[in-house]
Amino acid sequence: MNISPLQTARYEYSPKLPGMLRNGISDICVLEGEETSSVADQEKIKALFPNTYGKKEITFQKGQNTSVQKKQVVGVILSGGQAPGGHNVVCGLYDALKATNPENVLYGFKGGPSGLLEDDYIIFDDAYIDQYRNTGGFDIIGSGRTKLETQEQFAVAAEVCKKHEITAIVIIGGDDSNTNAAVLAEYMAAHNTGVQVIGCPKTIDGDLKNEDIEASFGFDTAAKTYSELIGNIERDCNSAKKYWHFVKVMGRSASHIALECALETQPNICLISEEVAAKKQSLAEISDYIADIVEKRAEQGMNFGVVIIPEGVVEFVPEFSSLIAEINELLAGKAGEAFSALPTWNEKKGFLHSGLRDQAVSVFSMLPQGIQQQLCLDRDPHGNVQVSLIESEKLFSSLVAANLAKRKAAGTYKGKFSPLHHFFGYEGRCAFPSNFDADYCYSLGYNAFMLIQYGFNGYLSKVSNLSKPAEEWVAGGMPITKMMNMERRHGEDKPVIRKALVDLDGAPFKYFEAHRQEWAENTCYTFPGAIQYFGPSSVCDLTTRTLALEQGE
Amino acid sequence: MNISPLQTARYEYSPKLPGMLRNGISDICVLEGEETSSVADQEKIKALFPNTYGKKEITFQKGQNTSVQKKQVVGVILSGGQAPGGHNVVCGLYDALKATNPENVLYGFKGGPSGLLEDDYIIFDDAYIDQYRNTGGFDIIGSGRTKLETQEQFAVAAEVCKKHEITAIVIIGGDDSNTNAAVLAEYMAAHNTGVQVIGCPKTIDGDLKNEDIEASFGFDTAAKTYSELIGNIERDCNSAKKYWHFVKVMGRSASHIALECALETQPNICLISEEVAAKKQSLAEISDYIADIVEKRAEQGMNFGVVIIPEGVVEFVPEFSSLIAEINELLAGKAGEAFSALPTWNEKKGFLHSGLRDQAVSVFSMLPQGIQQQLCLDRDPHGNVQVSLIESEKLFSSLVAANLAKRKAAGTYKGKFSPLHHFFGYEGRCAFPSNFDADYCYSLGYNAFMLIQYGFNGYLSKVSNLSKPAEEWVAGGMPITKMMNMERRHGEDKPVIRKALVDLDGAPFKYFEAHRQEWAENTCYTFPGAIQYFGPSSVCDLTTRTLALEQGE
Repeated sequence: MNISPLQTARYEYSPKLPGMLRNGISDICVLEGEETSSVADQEKIKALFPNTYGKKEITFQKGQNTSVQKKQVVGVILSGGQAPGGHNVVCGLYDALKATNPENVLYGFKGGPSGLLEDDYIIFDDAYIDQYRNTGGFDIIGSGRTKLETQEQFAVAAEVCKKHEITAIVIIGGDDSNTNAAVLAEYMAAHNTGVQVIGCPKTIDGDLKNEDIEASFGFDTAAKTYSELIGNIERDCNSAKKYWHFVKVMGRSASHIALECALETQPNICLISEEVAAKKQSLAEISDYIADIVEKRAEQGMNFGVVIIPEGVVEFVPEFSSLIAEINELLAGKAGEAFSALPTWNEKKGFLHSGLRDQAVSVFSMLPQGIQQQLCLDRDPHGNVQVSLIESEKLFSSLVAANLAKRKAAGTYKGKFSPLHHFFGYEGRCAFPSNFDADYCYSLGYNAFMLIQYGFNGYLSKVSNLSKPAEEWVAGGMPITKMMNMERRHGEDKPVIRKALVDLDGAPFKYFEAHRQEWAENTCYTFPGAIQYFGPSSVCDLTTRTLALEQGE
Repeated sequence: MNISPLQTARYEYSPKLPGMLRNGISDICVLEGEETSSVADQEKIKALFPNTYGKKEITFQKGQNTSVQKKQVVGVILSGGQAPGGHNVVCGLYDALKATNPENVLYGFKGGPSGLLEDDYIIFDDAYIDQYRNTGGFDIIGSGRTKLETQEQFAVAAEVCKKHEITAIVIIGGDDSNTNAAVLAEYMAAHNTGVQVIGCPKTIDGDLKNEDIEASFGFDTAAKTYSELIGNIERDCNSAKKYWHFVKVMGRSASHIALECALETQPNICLISEEVAAKKQSLAEISDYIADIVEKRAEQGMNFGVVIIPEGVVEFVPEFSSLIAEINELLAGKAGEAFSALPTWNEKKGFLHSGLRDQAVSVFSMLPQGIQQQLCLDRDPHGNVQVSLIESEKLFSSLVAANLAKRKAAGTYKGKFSPLHHFFGYEGRCAFPSNFDADYCYSLGYNAFMLIQYGFNGYLSKVSNLSKPAEEWVAGGMPITKMMNMERRHGEDKPVIRKALVDLDGAPFKYFEAHRQEWAENTCYTFPGAIQYFGPSSVCDLTTRTLALEQGE
C-alpha cells in the first residue's frame, strides 16, 4: 500500500478553472487595464525598476488568442515553506503549456531557488506530473530557502536559462520570494535575456495579501487542518471538562491563521499579535486577561477552556521583544562565550541579572525557567535568541497559573487550572489541498502560463473574486512592482512587497472582537471536522471565513 | 455559525446496521450458542459470579421477536476517556428502545459513573438526541473516571435504579469499566433487583480486544486522525528534507495505535512497546537502533525521517521502569519532603545519586535534564512519577542526538540531525466518527437494547465480522465473564478482563516487521489524508489495516 485510497481518488479530481479560462487555449485573449504605480515610494520604486515599473494590469477573457506562437521552455521553482496546493500550480502550468504546444518544455528546478543556481532539475512529463495531481507537499521537486537576490546569482540564473533556452521562470513563493522575482524580472529585462519571470502567491501564513491578491494559496487548507484539530480538542475539552488547552498555531508574525481558526472554532480565547502590539500589552496584562476569563468560567463551574496563541505573539509584546534584543546584545561575541562557559544555571542567571537593564530583569524573572533557558541557551549560529523555538503556549499557561495561584491565595479564585499544550504547524503545511486550494492553485499555474505566452514579465499570477464559485473567478496578472514599497531591512532601504498583518479595522477582526466575550464566558465551540473533498458543496467548496468576511459576506 | 457545515451534513447520515437487525424490531429473534467459561481461572471466576457465570453466547437473527413486552427504563453511562462514536452508541440504544415501545424511557447519567451514584441525569428525547447523531465527543452527557467497584456504590446504584424503576444500565467503557459492569451485573442479580447490566466496548487504545471482540470503538477514527497528521508530516519531511520528526501517539500501555499508524503511513521507524519489553531493550539499545537508521539514511543524503513512539513505551524499558520504581520508593513520604526542600537542582541530583542504586544512577545520568526533572519534580499527589507526562518523544531524540554526536566525533557519521517533536492524543479522541465507527457504534447501541429486551444480564454488546460490509456484520452478545481471568491489582487478586497488548506473533506486527527495514532505509511514506465521510467507498468505509490483517485480508 504505497498510494492511499484518498490519494488514488484525488488523482481523479479535475480542478476547476475560472470560467474565462475554460474555453480552450485558442479562446483566451488579453484585456488591458490601467497602468499601475506602486502602493508607496513611487519614485524610488520606479527608479529601481526602469524596465518593469508602471506596466498595465491585465485580465484574461474569452476571445481569439493573439499570442505569438513560439516554443516555450519554462522553469518552475518552489521557494520557502510548504503550502498545500503547490503541486497543482505546477500541474496547471504544465497543462496550459502542453495544451498550447506539445513541443513546449517544463523544467522543475530542485530544492528551491538553489536548484536554478546549481542547474539541478528534472523535465516534467505526463507520467511524472500525474503522480502529483491534487496532492499536498512540495516533494514534486522539493523546496528551499536560498534567496535569489544578488547580481551574481542573477547572472548565474541567466546563464542557466540561456543554456536550456529557457524563455520564462515561474517562482512560487511568499512575499520575499516574489519581491526577489520582481528584481530578477527587472534584471532579465535590463540584460535583454529574453527570459520572463512570473510569480505565484504562496504561503499558509496568509500575509501575502493586498488590494490585488485576495489570498495566498495554502492558507485555506492549513487553517482548516488546524481548525479540525482545534475543534476536536474543543469537543474533548467540553466532554472531559477538566483541562485548559493552550494551542499555538503557525503563521509567523501575522495572526491570520490564529484568527481564521478562531472564526472557525469559536474558542474561549484567541490572542491576536497585532492587537497586542497596538495596545502595547505587557505579559502581565495578557496573563490578567486570560486569568480573568479562567476565573469567570470557574465561577460557573467550567474549569476548562481553549486558548489559541499565534506563533509570533511574543515578538509583539513590547517588553518581551526588548528583553530579546537586550539578551541578543548582551550575549553577542565574547560575552556569549563567557556566558556559555559558566558551569551552573544560577551563575548564568547572575550574569544576566548584572548585564540586563532593570525592566528586562523584571520581565526575565517572570518567566518560567524552561522559557528562560530557551532564551539563553538555544541561540542560533549568530548568537541570537531563536524566537520561533520559544514555547509561548507554555509561557502563557505558566504565567496564568502563577496569576491564578495569587488569586487563590487572596480567596478570589476557587477553581482548578490544569493546562495542556499543543503546537500545530507541520501538520497542515502538506495536507491534501482542499477543493478550494486545488482549484485556486491549478488556476494560478494555468494562468501563469498564459501570462508567459502573452509575453508579460515581472507579473504575479492573479486570480480573484475567490469567495464566489470558480466559474466566476477572474484571471489575470498584476505587475509585482505595484505591490511594493520601500522598507528598512538589515540596515538598508529595500523595495519589498508590503507584508499584510491582521487589519484591526478589517471585517474578520471586527467580527471576532464583537463575539469574543460571548465565546469566552460561554461554551460556543464549533467543530469543523476534517477537510472533505467529496460530498455537499457547502462542506467541500467553501473557502475561509476570513475571505468571506473581507468580501462582505 | 454554531453548527459547522460538516456537522449539519453528518446529521443526515444513516448509520448502517448489521443485516440481521435491519428488518425491524418485530423481526429480531435470538439464536442461542454454547455455554461459556472464562478464558482462565474458571473455578475462581465462577465462584465470584455465581449468578452470571457460564451463560450462553447469543446471536440475533431474522425471526419472530419473542421478547416479553414490558416498559423498559434504561440508564446509560459513558465511562472514562472519550472515543469517537460514543454518541452513536447512545443514539442506537435510544432508537431501538423507542422503536420497541414509544413509552420506553432512556436516562443519561451525567459525568460518568458518578452520575449514577449522585442521581444526576437527563431524560433523552428526539430533539436532544438529534443534535448528537454522528458527532464526536462525549458531551451528550459527559464522561468521568469514577470506578463503580464497591458494594456500597452498588447499593447506591440499586437504590437509584429502584427510584426511577430502571430495568437496565448500559455502561460504555474500556476493559476496567466493563469488568466493573460484570461485577455490578452480578450484584444486581444476586440482590434480585431486576436490573440488567450491559457493556459496550469503547477505547481508542484498541486494547479491549479478544477472540470475541474484534475491535473497541473509536480506535478506527482516532488512529485515522493521527495517521492523517503523520502522513502530512511525512510529506512535509520529504519536501523540506531537513528534519527528523519524533511523533508520540496516545494509546496507554498498548502500542495498537502506534502500530496502526505505522501500517497506514509507513514511517522510517516505529517503536513497539511490547517488542521493547520482549527483547528487554535498554535505552542505549533503542537509541542505537534509531541512530543506526539515521546514519544509514544520512549516508544516502537523507537527513530526515519520521519516528513514531507509543505513549507508554518508557514503562516497557526494564531499566527505565526500575528507575521509576526506585525514584518512587526513594521519594516516598518524609524523604520526598526533604528532597523538595533542597534549594538547587544540583543538590537534588546529589540526593538522588546517593539514594539510588548504581544502575539506576547510570540510567538517570543518561537522561536529558528536562526528563530528569519531569521524573523528580512532577510527581502525583501520592509522590509517584507521572509517567504519562514524560515527554518520551524528546527523551529519545535527545538520546539519539547524544549518540550521533559520539559517532560524529568518531568520524562514522557525517549527517545533520535536527529533531522536531509532536504528541497526538486529544486531537483524535473526539473527531467526528468515521463511517465505520458511526455504523459500529450505532449497531452496538441498537444491539445493546436488544440484549436488554431479551433479558440478558452481564453481557457485552458484540458486533463482529467487522472487516466485511455492515450488511454482513454479526450482532449478538457475550457474557463478560467469558473474557475474564484473575490478575494481581494493587496487591489483590481480582477478576478482570484481560487487556490485549500487541501480539508479536499476530499478523499486524508480522507485516510491520517484514517491511520496516525497507521503510527505514528508503522513503516509502503513505499519505492517508483526512477522514472522508462522503465519496468512494474505498476512501470512506474501510476500517483499520490492523483488523484487515487480523482477519487475514
